Amino acid sequence: MIKAIFFDIDDTLFPSSEFAELARRNAIRAMIEIGIQKNESQLYLALGKIIKKHGSNYTRHFDNLCRGLGIKRPARYVAAAVAAYHNTKTAIQPFPNVPRTLLALRESGYRLFVATNGEATKQWDKLIRLQIALYFEDVFVSGEIGKEKSPAFFRKILKGLRVRPEQSVMVGDREDTDILPAKKIKMRTIRMATGRYAGASTRADKSAKDFVQIPRIVQSFKK
Amino acid sequence: MIKAIFFDIDDTLFPSSEFAELARRNAIRAMIEIGIQKNESQLYLALGKIIKKHGSNYTRHFDNLCRGLGIKRPARYVAAAVAAYHNTKTAIQPFPNVPRTLLALRESGYRLFVATNGEATKQWDKLIRLQIALYFEDVFVSGEIGKEKSPAFFRKILKGLRVRPEQSVMVGDREDTDILPAKKIKMRTIRMATGRYAGASTRADKSAKDFVQIPRIVQSFKK
Repeated sequence: MIKAIFFDIDDTLFPSSEFAELARRNAIRAMIEIGIQKNESQLYLALGKIIKKHGSNYTRHFDNLCRGLGIKRPARYVAAAVAAYHNTKTAIQPFPNVPRTLLALRESGYRLFVATNGEATKQWDKLIRLQIALYFEDVFVSGEIGKEKSPAFFRKILKGLRVRPEQSVMVGDREDTDILPAKKIKMRTIRMATGRYAGASTRADKSAKDFVQIPRIVQSFKK
Repeated sequence: MIKAIFFDIDDTLFPSSEFAELARRNAIRAMIEIGIQKNESQLYLALGKIIKKHGSNYTRHFDNLCRGLGIKRPARYVAAAVAAYHNTKTAIQPFPNVPRTLLALRESGYRLFVATNGEATKQWDKLIRLQIALYFEDVFVSGEIGKEKSPAFFRKILKGLRVRPEQSVMVGDREDTDILPAKKIKMRTIRMATGRYAGASTRADKSAKDFVQIPRIVQSFKK
């Protein structure tokens, strides 16, 4: 019997790659709107390089962009970019059928959890914006647990919950951080064919294109 | 002849004190909604003490609040509080008649500027959220100028613009930072009787309760 289901967040519960891309585009457009004398694609390329160099959790992308362009008083452009970026990021929406499926799984008696890499406050912010935070009994974030998603991460969590690996399912879009570590300790696995890695092959027990398929797949995991 | 008009932002262009208060209230309510086991007024009082101690530009109010309450995994509460706080802060609206009056003043040929204390990016963010940034020819923020609003601050700006003090007006809600320093160098002054200091007496040339009065007052400032 399956008792607990764990979900990844990014590109599993919502299209995070799409929103990240749109947030950058909107930020660049806002800088132009407020008067920066630069070309859109030039700005976009320069921003891409900064993100590649400093990572997406860096908080001074736009200051850095302005400095690179030799802008002396960057505040107006930074403010416009950050406002547009945040407006986009706070407008995130779940993939189709995510909230109704989570609710249905709860009503069927499954215990629902989130298992995600990243910074705890940032990952909670996404669940709150997506209006699905209350569906989860608990949220396990690598930043709080002290290790990235791995066999040890899942083993530690399951032990705390007194749930055996065979009684649990991991649902995620990434082979490396979701499927393989969970499979290694004999959790059941569902690979969501969504987001950047949708085309890649999988060693998961099952794969799904739509969240609405999950209850049936979970039911099929009989011991 | 008046050529240039300078405006303060907080409690002059929009009710910043009201929004700050509401943002704190909403943040506390969101923490309760997401499951913190504390009483609303208790949380509100504790937050007030933290803001008093660290100032309103401190960025870790809610982490600090959770730590003070002995909460071990604060991410969910911090995320909920920050999201609600920002949702409120980004929903700021100008005082009645502000955008239409700024537009009318522009059309009458006045050069419009902002003169404000604070951090440049934060002050620009407010103008962008209020959708009035484009009405201003330039924005002078103490954080960029290198001094707080003072006779020297205004003298430096006016010199750069080649505008004489008698040809300029300062519009603001505060006697100490708006009216007195501008008056000292012989700028004209309009005290907005809005916000926290609405009841205080003033040495400004004129005072106004509604932004719509400004064009007539400015016209009355004949040399």
